Formats: sequence, C-alpha cells, structure tokens
Amino acid sequence: MARFHCLTFLTDYGLEDAFVAVCHGVAAQITPGLLITDITHLIPPGDIKRGAVVLAQAVPYFPPAVHVAVVDPGVGTARRGVAVQAGGALFVGPDNGLLSVAVAAAGGARQAVALTNTALWLDGAAATFHGRDIFMPVAARLAAGLPLTSAGDPVEVGSLVTLPPPACRLTAEGAELEVVTVDRYGNAQLSLPGRDAARAGLVPGAAVVITWDEREQTAPFVTTFGDVAPGELLCYRDGGDWVALAVAGGDAARMLGLRPGTRVTLAPRR
Amino acid sequence: MARFHCLTFLTDYGLEDAFVAVCHGVAAQITPGLLITDITHLIPPGDIKRGAVVLAQAVPYFPPAVHVAVVDPGVGTARRGVAVQAGGALFVGPDNGLLSVAVAAAGGARQAVALTNTALWLDGAAATFHGRDIFMPVAARLAAGLPLTSAGDPVEVGSLVTLPPPACRLTAEGAELEVVTVDRYGNAQLSLPGRDAARAGLVPGAAVVITWDEREQTAPFVTTFGDVAPGELLCYRDGGDWVALAVAGGDAARMLGLRPGTRVTLAPRR
Amino acid sequence: MARFHCLTFLTDYGLEDAFVAVCHGVAAQITPGLLITDITHLIPPGDIKRGAVVLAQAVPYFPPAVHVAVVDPGVGTARRGVAVQAGGALFVGPDNGLLSVAVAAAGGARQAVALTNTALWLDGAAATFHGRDIFMPVAARLAAGLPLTSAGDPVEVGSLVTLPPPACRLTAEGAELEVVTVDRYGNAQLSLPGRDAARAGLVPGAAVVITWDEREQTAPFVTTFGDVAPGELLCYRDGGDWVALAVAGGDAARMLGLRPGTRVTLAPRR
Repeated sequence: MARFHCLTFLTDYGLEDAFVAVCHGVAAQITPGLLITDITHLIPPGDIKRGAVVLAQAVPYFPPAVHVAVVDPGVGTARRGVAVQAGGALFVGPDNGLLSVAVAAAGGARQAVALTNTALWLDGAAATFHGRDIFMPVAARLAAGLPLTSAGDPVEVGSLVTLPPPACRLTAEGAELEVVTVDRYGNAQLSLPGRDAARAGLVPGAAVVITWDEREQTAPFVTTFGDVAPGELLCYRDGGDWVALAVAGGDAARMLGLRPGTRVTLAPRR
Repeated sequence: MARFHCLTFLTDYGLEDAFVAVCHGVAAQITPGLLITDITHLIPPGDIKRGAVVLAQAVPYFPPAVHVAVVDPGVGTARRGVAVQAGGALFVGPDNGLLSVAVAAAGGARQAVALTNTALWLDGAAATFHGRDIFMPVAARLAAGLPLTSAGDPVEVGSLVTLPPPACRLTAEGAELEVVTVDRYGNAQLSLPGRDAARAGLVPGAAVVITWDEREQTAPFVTTFGDVAPGELLCYRDGGDWVALAVAGGDAARMLGLRPGTRVTLAPRR
Repeated sequence: MARFHCLTFLTDYGLEDAFVAVCHGVAAQITPGLLITDITHLIPPGDIKRGAVVLAQAVPYFPPAVHVAVVDPGVGTARRGVAVQAGGALFVGPDNGLLSVAVAAAGGARQAVALTNTALWLDGAAATFHGRDIFMPVAARLAAGLPLTSAGDPVEVGSLVTLPPPACRLTAEGAELEVVTVDRYGNAQLSLPGRDAARAGLVPGAAVVITWDEREQTAPFVTTFGDVAPGELLCYRDGGDWVALAVAGGDAARMLGLRPGTRVTLAPRR
C-alpha cells in the first residue's frame, strides 16, 4: 500500500492534559517526519455522534490520509478496534459508529480489519488508552505503507457499527428535520442537504416558517449573513452545503434554544 | 516571487469545530509539505480589533511568511478579499481592517490585490466560508511562489481599510490612553509604546497614578512582576514593549475591571 | 552534540494570545524546518506542580527531543534559566521545579548549565517573556546541534530545584496518598504507582475503601471503565500506570470533590 503523507487526529481528549501530545510522540517514534493535523480534541467526552459529524465535515478537504479518531467510552470492553478503507483514505479507531459518517461520505467501506495484530501495539498496552497504545501505533505504520491486511483479521464491512442517519422527512408541507450540530458561532446545521432545499419548498428570498419545541419563527432563506440586518434570524445553505439557521452577528442556538437532536420543521410561508 | 516556507493562520473559528482543520487540509492539497503555524483561533467571534492586535503581536517574530487571517463578520457581502505585501511578508484576508495593524507594523502596504481571480478559488466557493474557499487556497499558492499580481486585480494601497489607532495623548500631566488588549494572565496592555514612557513622566522606580472609570490607584513603574509583592499592582513595559498594568501572581484586568477600550490615564505621582 | 528532530513545548501561555505562536516563529527563524509539538499551553497560570506532572506524563513517549517548558511566575527575578540533559533528552526552562519530575523520570540530570550565554538570546531580551527571548532561542539552537556547554555556565546537578514528591505511605491498613492530578474526564490520578498496588492490598476484583475529607466510599479495583455499570466509581491502574479513581461515563473529581493535593487513603475492604 502506498505511503500517506498526512495523518489527521480527532479525539475527546481535551487540550489540558498530555494525552494528545503523547499520541503525537508515539507516531513520531514510529514514523519520523509524519505530518499530523489535529482536527479537534474538544469533542465533548464520550459524544460519539458529535465526533462522527465533525470528522465527516473535515475529511473531504484532505488529501489521501490516515484519519485517526478516538471517542471511546467503551475502551477496554469487547468493542473492536478497526481500520477501514474508504475512498482513498484509511480510518482508524473504535468500531462504535464514530467513523461511520465519514466512511459513508467517502463512498462507503471497501475493506476493513479488526486491529488484532498485537505485534503492532505499544508494549504493555493499557486497558484505558487505546489511542496511545493501539490506534496511533497502527495508524503510524499504515501511513508508512503497512498493508491494511497486516493490521489484523479481516472484518465484513457490513458488520461495522454505523450511526442511524439523522431524521429528515420531506412532506407536502415542508421538511421534518433535526439539528445535527451547533458550531462555535451558534449556527445550527440541520439534517437537510442544501441540494434538497428546493424540494422542501425553500427558494432563495422566500420566507421560511421554522417550528421547534412548540415555538415558531419566520426567517428568510438567503445566501449569507449580510443579507439580513444584524441580530436577525436567517436560513441558508452553510459551508458544508447543509441547510442551517443563524443569527447575523449573533448566536442562533442560544437565542432559539437549539441543541443537537432538537426536532425542527421548515416550511415555506404560504 | 520566491517561495515562502511558512504560513501562519489566525481566525475566530474556535477549536471545537472542523473549520481550522478543513483549511489545513485545503492548504495541504494545494501545496504539500507547507508548514502551517496557528497563531490563535480563539479571537472572539467577529472581534476584528482583537484579531488585528494579536496578528500584529505575532508577525514580527516570524521569518518571511504568508499570514492568513480571517475574522470576517461581513463574509459574503461586498467587502473585498485582499492580499497585501508589506515588508517581506504577504497578508491574506478580508479587507475590513483585520490586517491593517500588522501591515502598518511591517512598514506599510507596498502592493495589494483584490482576490478576484476565481480560478484560484475552491470549486463552488460558498458564500459563508471564504477562509476555506478563497483565502487559504490563494495563500497556499502564494506560498508556493505564485506572483501576487496573479491573485487578482491591483488595489490602491491607500484604499485598504485601516483601523483607527487607539487613543494615546501625552499631556503636561501624563498620558491619556486606552486598554488595547487583555491577555490570559489579566495583564492589560495600554496604548503607550514603552519607548515613550519617559515622555509621559514614567521613570523606573517612580510611582504612577492610574485613573480609570472614576477610580484611582497608584502603582510603581518597575521592570518585572518580581519587583513587587505578590498581589500588588505594577506598571511596566511588557514583552511587546508597550506600557502595561499587571498584578503579581494575579489578574489585573479582573481586579481593576479593565477591558479593551477602557480609558486609562497614567501620571507620575507628584 | 547530535541534532534533535523534535522539540516539544509546554507552557501556561493559554491559546487566546499570540505568545505560543511568537515562540514558534522565533524557533522557525533560528532553526528552519524544526518540528515543534505542543504538549499543552493550558497549564493554569503559574501552576508549576501541574506543569511538572503533565510534562513528565508526555516525555517518555517522545523520541529524543528538546523539551521546552515555561511556567514561570518568577520570570525576571533571580531564578535561573537552565538546560538539563537527562536520558537522551534535553530540558530547557526556568529552574523552579517545573522540569524536575520529568528529569527524574528520565533517569535524573546528568549535566546542566545556567543559560548565561546572552549571545544566544533574542536581541533586547524582555524581563517578562523569557520563553520568547531566552528559552526558545537557546532550545532551537540546541536542537540544531549546539553543545549543551555552549549555552552557559555549568551548574551542579544537585543544585537544581526539585519539587517534593507527592505523599505516598504504605501502612498495614493500606495506602496514604494524595491526588496528583485530575484530567479532562475528571479521573483522579493518585500518588501510588500501579506496580505497588498489590503491596497496598489492592488486588483485581477486590473492593477498595476510599477515604478523603472525612468521607468514605467503596469501589472495586478493576481493569477498565466497562467493568462497572455507568455512573459507578472504580479504582484502576491508569494509562500512565498510576492508581486512579474514575466514574464510568462520569466525572469522579466533581462527584467526590477531589482536587490535586486532596489526601486520599485506600484500603482493601476486610
């Protein structure tokens, strides 16, 4: 297998401890000169769904890479560690759904192995730090050209754990959706692909009736924040081409009380 | 134009989302092997002034580099994207004043272009993520040696948006200043260059009367934190050679209620 | 002295200011192409003990490197700046105990110098930013192959400031310990090495009586989080092989009110 020049790293390790650096050090020992790009380490502890969404947002913009992701509340239990090939990339992490959104976006798993080759692990692997002891050492070797099949036993790709897709139902009245993720600015990304906006009756310039938690508000469907006055709500296609809600110069999620999972209905005003 | 071996990156994107990593990935695709140094991504959302100050603090310590900065509440509106040459460096970002303090500190803009060459943009550039779609792709190509003039139409350097300089008036009584920025330790950097301290009557060892918000306190003008007892206020020339206020082992901004923009008068005690 | 290909960096500078980037820029100017790995910059301001513990957690996982650490409340006072050789690594920072735990873990100081060679400092070194002006410039040159003895005057290794070891006393009843550090997940690492657990009567599967702040609770001594039900307390050997307390899927430190320095007694239930 060809060498990868890029390795990305996403975890819920936080930035206050040595966890992230320790993994960088392990990779540097095994594959000197490997460039590691941190995606984020601020996934809320154990929040597999949030980790899966952020990973999937980042991966399409990277050259062929090994993507290591660790949000792993089940570390040390029977859940498998896996390496998965999808598109031109490899994904390494726990088989708990964390990798599944990005793998699907990359065209689906083509091949997978369970990380059973203990010769690739760090000596004396701990039960609670597989990022350091298993995932990163294996990933660093895969980046250096180790064939995927050398990392462990083949796994049926259909057996990989996948997260259920977020709610998205188009009806005669509009779209029944959920908030998939909220970003730093308080913009709420919904489960409606931008390319399907027209099918839900959302056309540029039109007014959209937004319903959630027994509340209702109307906002224009526009292109960017500057299309509304500061402080006003807008509905738009975001940078990842998902339909999203924002407040110009403000925080929509806080203003509207939206969180990941909040059910939201969008309908064109009639 | 010669290649740059270093690219720096400053934004208000935060560290919880994939925004920063996405831009790193875009750069890695366009110019493999480019070293990117993150300055900070924790500029408060939309705070152009804070972004400008932090960028200007960092730039002088880098070798010749392409500096990408994105704090861009007007993304997608008529505000221009620009690339500016100043000193041995290039600056890439929105033309909203964000680059202006660093550009001035580097000797002023020598040449500038609006980023109108859409062939350099990412395909299908979004209206809300110019960091990913315009600024970083253009910057990565400039780092690889693309001539500045190939990035877009020439712009009169006098037309670039600049932030007004912070208040700084030397009077017979002392200096009328403002807090420019507050750092992690709570140290408050004032708008008085250290080299002008003597002209404001501040001499090493002397007592300084500090007035703000109708409050008044006296502190010694000293060299470092260890020159006063723990918990005591001091006035000193900081690492960037600006006059600043600090509390030894404490947080001056919190203790005194200082924020960026707070008007402060310093006068030698008579 | 051989070149080092890796430089690590740990501080209490935070991530909101330009401090960290400025130091990266200084290193890039002096030793182009040097790979810098940030360990963390979120040590609480001035918390030397926490800095020392995190540095010691990270260092063993790196290839031979120059480790720069700056938590330096005494900057600008008489405290020395030093460079210390221990194992295959060099440590650079203030002589205030910050380096001592990692140096001891690396086998103890073999040679040390005070950073008195001002020719290696940045021009016009400030009294309050030795990370930028002294530690990083010297470290970048050491990484490039400068002999340790060229960095300044030899120092007796026995004169280096060391932190007192954390309390750890094994008695007939069990172990009198303290909380050494609390990580992002709220896991509390205690001052008992995992290899000494059996000597304290802790055997896999047995129940442990935990006493602190006049409170008492019992938890099983197990291998990993999945060995107890969600929300339950456990005692285990952590990734650094220290005995630690955690709550499966929860935050033990918050739940039990544990902080660094809290005295904790562990005893097998009889």
